[in-house]
Amino acid sequence: MINEIMDVCIIGSGPAGLSASVYAGRAGLKHVIYEKFPMSGGQIVNTGDVENYLGFTSIGGFDLALKFYEHAVKAGGIFKNETVKSISKSNGIFEIISEKGKTEYFKTVIAATGAKSKTLGARGEAEFTGKGVSYCAHCDGAFYRNQTAVVVGGGDTAVSDALFLSNLCRQVIVVHRRDEFRAAKSLVNKLETKENVKILRGFVLNEIKGDTKAQSVILKSVTNNETQEFLTDGVFIAVGVSPVNELFKDIAETDEAGFLTANEDCKTSLDGLFVAGDLRAKPLRQIVTAVSDGANAVYSAEKYLREG
Amino acid sequence: MINEIMDVCIIGSGPAGLSASVYAGRAGLKHVIYEKFPMSGGQIVNTGDVENYLGFTSIGGFDLALKFYEHAVKAGGIFKNETVKSISKSNGIFEIISEKGKTEYFKTVIAATGAKSKTLGARGEAEFTGKGVSYCAHCDGAFYRNQTAVVVGGGDTAVSDALFLSNLCRQVIVVHRRDEFRAAKSLVNKLETKENVKILRGFVLNEIKGDTKAQSVILKSVTNNETQEFLTDGVFIAVGVSPVNELFKDIAETDEAGFLTANEDCKTSLDGLFVAGDLRAKPLRQIVTAVSDGANAVYSAEKYLREG
Repeated sequence: MINEIMDVCIIGSGPAGLSASVYAGRAGLKHVIYEKFPMSGGQIVNTGDVENYLGFTSIGGFDLALKFYEHAVKAGGIFKNETVKSISKSNGIFEIISEKGKTEYFKTVIAATGAKSKTLGARGEAEFTGKGVSYCAHCDGAFYRNQTAVVVGGGDTAVSDALFLSNLCRQVIVVHRRDEFRAAKSLVNKLETKENVKILRGFVLNEIKGDTKAQSVILKSVTNNETQEFLTDGVFIAVGVSPVNELFKDIAETDEAGFLTANEDCKTSLDGLFVAGDLRAKPLRQIVTAVSDGANAVYSAEKYLREG
Repeated sequence: MINEIMDVCIIGSGPAGLSASVYAGRAGLKHVIYEKFPMSGGQIVNTGDVENYLGFTSIGGFDLALKFYEHAVKAGGIFKNETVKSISKSNGIFEIISEKGKTEYFKTVIAATGAKSKTLGARGEAEFTGKGVSYCAHCDGAFYRNQTAVVVGGGDTAVSDALFLSNLCRQVIVVHRRDEFRAAKSLVNKLETKENVKILRGFVLNEIKGDTKAQSVILKSVTNNETQEFLTDGVFIAVGVSPVNELFKDIAETDEAGFLTANEDCKTSLDGLFVAGDLRAKPLRQIVTAVSDGANAVYSAEKYLREG
């Protein structure tokens, strides 16, 4: 027997989920926010300084996550520190089962589980994340103005990141394990013309060294296993981003990489399911585009509830 | 003779323009921000409290505008307190002429001049704006939870706003000067079923009264000019929004209402011209969607500069 059908279920409490909670609360919608990690904030919890979210000239990622959380808590949503195990929809109602075996019912769901940067698993990589190691050149590039940066990867993102950084940094070293780049030829050609870019083909990143922050990388040749050390200020790892889509990939359309397809109105292919933040197939993944999605998703959900 | 061609010209310094400035600065792009008003911040300068921009639980609009401006100033753009008189493009270069007759050249332009809510011109309307009078139910509705709100207008926005407010407010009074609503019939039918909504056809808002904030409205019948006073906590004026598009409407595509057409990548129909914020044709006009546009517009501009 269904006791209560609530308006909105938000799954994930990064910037997108927390913004959705603020908007849902202000729209008078009864909602639950599920978060599997002990702390809300998503990827920014482990980010160093954030200087591109308008209104905060410079703030630590952890502190910004706290501010976001405190704001959302005021909106009156019910926070549940539980992993969602399954989602299904029948007769227009979503059934959400958590790891504790509890079942709740909702009229709409906002998928805000985000994405994860792929890691290399190199020695020192985890230790120096947020301390010289970054997975987002457009977020953190400006911290390395007139300094040296290493970019690891061979796809469009890695080459675009290297081009972006070449306008900011004194020197950019691009490390790719293969001889050929997967990136578009035009981008690679452009990169090769940059005087301050050095391209190392056939090398892998073996280790990141430093004391309190990254100071050098050890690169290993894939042909003869010889290693070389390069001093650097920043290391940008651009080997891909994976959507956290397990709960949704079988109930809504995704793009080839597994991100849920939706326009800026955040409507997925499944009626009543909306997607906000990094999980959405979109041009630019930033804190502010996630927060904007949270507002748009609730706006769409609210219209759906009203017209339903 | 052209002395210098800069990377980006941002016209307008509301949330969209200021966010664009932060992103442009961090991308190492040389840019100018033109603002015709003495203070940056756009519509939020005259807004009361803002409680839906994630990270600030509650802040005055004026104070938030100051924070936004201070953040942008750090990004290193050149602020010019000048009205732009004309924009033209030839040989891939934009020529910007300001009211002072000065000419500057840019590779890209971000249009961020925003939009203006249409006003009624009723007595007390200007005086109580931000003090009980609002032009945005989705921004300010939550301030009137369990209170009484008056909505003025007869289009889709007015009726949607009234439905939205009916979930939050104790009572909603809808005032429309005609007998027939322009809004979709389905919306009007829905509105008529709401027990806490009172619809007054054939009335206009004559005056808003109060001391430090709005406390009542005087409505006048269009048939016999008789007036009635209704006590209220909030007055939502939903008679339309006008794009501030004079500089752009002849050089880029607009929708029927005059907003510049562009997807979330902010690319207009004119190469090198991007649009961010309320001036863009888009589903939801909020501070956070404007700030997000600023990031997306610079991301697109940066790619255009790189590939151009």
